[in-house]
Amino acid sequence: MDHERRVEDMDPGKREIMEATYKALRKHGYGNLTIQRIADEFEKSKTLLYYHYDGKDDLLVDFLDYVLHRFLADLPTDEQSPRAELETLVDTLLPETLDEESYQVQLAMFELRVNSPHDEECREQYLEVDSELKSLLTDIIERGVETGDFEAVDPEVESEALLSLLTGTRTRRLTVFDPDESIRHLRRAIRTHIERMAATDDA
Amino acid sequence: MDHERRVEDMDPGKREIMEATYKALRKHGYGNLTIQRIADEFEKSKTLLYYHYDGKDDLLVDFLDYVLHRFLADLPTDEQSPRAELETLVDTLLPETLDEESYQVQLAMFELRVNSPHDEECREQYLEVDSELKSLLTDIIERGVETGDFEAVDPEVESEALLSLLTGTRTRRLTVFDPDESIRHLRRAIRTHIERMAATDDA
Repeated sequence: MDHERRVEDMDPGKREIMEATYKALRKHGYGNLTIQRIADEFEKSKTLLYYHYDGKDDLLVDFLDYVLHRFLADLPTDEQSPRAELETLVDTLLPETLDEESYQVQLAMFELRVNSPHDEECREQYLEVDSELKSLLTDIIERGVETGDFEAVDPEVESEALLSLLTGTRTRRLTVFDPDESIRHLRRAIRTHIERMAATDDA
Repeated sequence: MDHERRVEDMDPGKREIMEATYKALRKHGYGNLTIQRIADEFEKSKTLLYYHYDGKDDLLVDFLDYVLHRFLADLPTDEQSPRAELETLVDTLLPETLDEESYQVQLAMFELRVNSPHDEECREQYLEVDSELKSLLTDIIERGVETGDFEAVDPEVESEALLSLLTGTRTRRLTVFDPDESIRHLRRAIRTHIERMAATDDA
């Protein structure tokens, strides 16, 4: 899927709403987010917000889709090897520290995930997030096995492990770490996992 | 720490409250849990509940501590090797499927985790949960390196990776899987990770 196109193809009105939501979330966080606060960041009328969405949670499901494809479109495409690509993906999802505003956006995405058991639309959107990330990981690992970056591992199994590692590290960071607290030791654990996947000749 | 003693040493009144909370959570889930519903499972007076706790969230912080030490006390102590011990720990934390009642209890624990960024007591309790699990994992891996179950890995690094893997698998299960949906492929990914930690002579 061409993620840049997916973002560009979004209804321009909706795209502006997504950008306003992003700004409002960075400022106020999920708990204090209201349609009024999104409208405050939006140049057009509040009526347009209500025309597109029933409420905050409805809007946030689309926002999740927008953030996913924005993220995928922004990943660098000029990495020198599948292993470097994987390491960049980890660094992008899990920077060593977070500024307060990025923390608010990530925490909002996480609180939305926790709504999933109670909200079918939200759950389906998160299934898509996990499925897109898993495809991306599987694809990188498949190419890495071909180039010899990784030993002869099963890309389907390894992408599940990496997705769980990434999800768990993010859960731990967002729930028990301060935003500006370094997660260097958690990143090191992921790095060690990747090193062990790498071809043993290389070690 | 002797976890059995820690559970046994709990004020008997509090222990009965914890048992009533467990029953109420299994029946009603976190979202529908009220002090009244806990009192309905409790043989003594509701006044006693209010004597010990300010409200539901206050009570659930103690409940989290109770569940942690109950879990640690109940782990089998007669495993044949550190690797078998690690595999049993994984199986206990992540059964292949969950019945509806166990799902409600696990989901409640997870929703409480998501309160952590907004509730300092809750965050401290979750820091303790993570720290106890990490000590347990580090201890198993240290012994496994000594016995040759695992290759010469760094137990501190490996226990972080395992804690993230376990947390991430649990997050994924609780948010996008149905309770009775098998997580066999997620468990297989953890098993592969452990196999790769195992001494290569053994492979």
